Amino acid sequence: MRIVAAVVTPVAFPDPPLLNSAGVHEPWALRTIVELDCGDGLIGLGETFGDAPHLDQVRRAAAALAGVDPFDLAAGRRAVAAGCDRAERADRQDPVARVFAPFEVACLDVQARAVGRPVHALLGGRVRDHVAFSAYLFYKWGAHPSSTEDGFGAALDPDGLVAQARLFVDRYGFRSIKLKGGVYEPAVEIEAIQALRAAFPEHPLRLDPNCAWTVDTSAKVAVATAGLLEYLEDPTPGIDGMAEVARDAPMPLATNMCVVRTDHLRPAFTQGAVGVVLADHHFWGGLRASADLAAVCRAWDVGVSMHSNSHLGISLAAMVQLGAALPNLTYAADTHTPWQDGVDVVTAPLPIVDGSVAVPSSPGLGVELDRDQLARLHERYERCGIRVRDDTAYMRTVDPAYRKLRPRW
Amino acid sequence: MRIVAAVVTPVAFPDPPLLNSAGVHEPWALRTIVELDCGDGLIGLGETFGDAPHLDQVRRAAAALAGVDPFDLAAGRRAVAAGCDRAERADRQDPVARVFAPFEVACLDVQARAVGRPVHALLGGRVRDHVAFSAYLFYKWGAHPSSTEDGFGAALDPDGLVAQARLFVDRYGFRSIKLKGGVYEPAVEIEAIQALRAAFPEHPLRLDPNCAWTVDTSAKVAVATAGLLEYLEDPTPGIDGMAEVARDAPMPLATNMCVVRTDHLRPAFTQGAVGVVLADHHFWGGLRASADLAAVCRAWDVGVSMHSNSHLGISLAAMVQLGAALPNLTYAADTHTPWQDGVDVVTAPLPIVDGSVAVPSSPGLGVELDRDQLARLHERYERCGIRVRDDTAYMRTVDPAYRKLRPRW
Repeated sequence: MRIVAAVVTPVAFPDPPLLNSAGVHEPWALRTIVELDCGDGLIGLGETFGDAPHLDQVRRAAAALAGVDPFDLAAGRRAVAAGCDRAERADRQDPVARVFAPFEVACLDVQARAVGRPVHALLGGRVRDHVAFSAYLFYKWGAHPSSTEDGFGAALDPDGLVAQARLFVDRYGFRSIKLKGGVYEPAVEIEAIQALRAAFPEHPLRLDPNCAWTVDTSAKVAVATAGLLEYLEDPTPGIDGMAEVARDAPMPLATNMCVVRTDHLRPAFTQGAVGVVLADHHFWGGLRASADLAAVCRAWDVGVSMHSNSHLGISLAAMVQLGAALPNLTYAADTHTPWQDGVDVVTAPLPIVDGSVAVPSSPGLGVELDRDQLARLHERYERCGIRVRDDTAYMRTVDPAYRKLRPRW
Repeated sequence: MRIVAAVVTPVAFPDPPLLNSAGVHEPWALRTIVELDCGDGLIGLGETFGDAPHLDQVRRAAAALAGVDPFDLAAGRRAVAAGCDRAERADRQDPVARVFAPFEVACLDVQARAVGRPVHALLGGRVRDHVAFSAYLFYKWGAHPSSTEDGFGAALDPDGLVAQARLFVDRYGFRSIKLKGGVYEPAVEIEAIQALRAAFPEHPLRLDPNCAWTVDTSAKVAVATAGLLEYLEDPTPGIDGMAEVARDAPMPLATNMCVVRTDHLRPAFTQGAVGVVLADHHFWGGLRASADLAAVCRAWDVGVSMHSNSHLGISLAAMVQLGAALPNLTYAADTHTPWQDGVDVVTAPLPIVDGSVAVPSSPGLGVELDRDQLARLHERYERCGIRVRDDTAYMRTVDPAYRKLRPRW
């Protein structure tokens, strides 16, 4: 069996105005869908980031993969690495890992379909039947500028966030709650956490300001939220800064920002900078590389969760397959899925029920491509005008004085 | 596909009188051969230790595995764990890992045969075409008591060891050399290393006294062998002791004794106790668990080699498949294969040529069971009278005053 062709399709889908430390989500989120055609009707699926420079790299990689055995991941990675522009280093992530990841997932999808088993069977087998996700709350406007209010409503204060959490918990049964912070000054976000704790006394809570705070501010927030958070995620930039905060923080620190490639693990773990790593197969190099990451966390007794960007159902399925096989997925994973409000490129997105996704038993990832939807979302990509995500520039269209600052407080 | 039956066969094969820190190898070495029958002629092979208590556990595990999908390693491990006597903790190794390992290898063999690819394809793919092994030298008598001299001759001084090395290098092309030490006082073994260096100026050398030395003695030997050894293996017992030696040793320390399960990794690496871990799929829980170990070593920039006990061709093939897929197999692996002198349970043992084994391209492990030989070696097991390896007791038949001491010097 050989890869006959790898088809790469950029797509865009509607995204609400979600606020974060860099600005606000634009009206369209971008993703890239990969189809790996291995002949005999065997097609594997992958999904990755949609920014133009990355898309270019993915297209180059797709061409390089023709003729490779989808069972030979090492050969696939070599083929991708040979043509990879290593200068493109988003947030210090491994450029080859970022480009190879959707193909690795697609190869595993093909392998699993070929052997008539779910992908988790190729990752060591199923250790759980359900993979838990958390409600991912955002401060948000009620609508994009010059648009009508979206179905989620505004959330610009504690009441708004509690209402948003209620909506998500009612709809999906989430059993833990994460707030994307770094939007307002820390005291305001602490109040929001207190309001969520009052409204959801049993739900573990997390706060993620995306490095918006100095070490000093982070330390103060950690003390102020003692007993309220199961973890505090990326309060401040860098391993050294995180280590300083971690020293006295009463809760574990989590990260998907200061530990994003293998060579970050040793300095971060040695310094005790983080107690939880959010795995993300999109930039760690796929599901097997993420399992390797989890193996290191396991040896170090560091917790594991999963990170999410705005994504579609192929990525969700990949996260579920990985989560099904990881012995030490110690925390519910993040997902933006509720914000996509049912828009997807798969025929039957894996449903989130009681806060978790039942691990599929069908062969492969457990999802099938909806070609009509793919064509529709590709058309939207063509028309939306966005080629690189820029939350800061979009925020400036509303507030010309806005600047991205890390840390801000 | 389901496991229809798991056949467990203990075997014995001739072993030369190899000296070590615990005594001397008995005339027969024991192993256990596992055949996993998955129906439709699909049979997977595994090989493990042969001591009676372990054999009992393996037999119990074999019965528990009937009906399990050979692709579902997690389910297989659970089935084995449920019946495992965790009190049997050989050298602090993980009892479930030890018992599950041959079945994990056999499951991977079946999986790989089912998909028509070598086992390494299921471990991430081939990153090298040859897996290097080192010449494994032993002090040895010329013959077992009341037996005629074996074909390897005596090696009780530097000249004997140099001759032994010459024989192995000529016959197999080994490009690195390991001496099993801990037999004579350290000054004598240092002389042997110096003689090997003089005779083989280009071959990396290793010395492994199996914890025969105190911290103080180890530190002195490390200084005395500066520039002579690529690594010094297990000079002294325990992670703390190794860390003390490592602090001033001019070469990396290696281990297969103080780091034998996942929870040893963090303390050992944090203390800088070892620079090289010798993976051994027989007690780490199989090939995937060994790959996890290698992933941790990679993150920590700790080298990886492979450990060997007296073994047959199934274990060699498993080591080769693992070695083919590990990105960071940084040192030639150990093997006792030359000491078995062609006796095997496989029809065509993988040959060692130019110091390495060419990675097979055939489906599965790359070896087939020789049922005649299996029956013959099982008959030898029945007749040999040995049920638990005891190098110390055997040494006492020659030297009644002999005692096993760790450390001895």
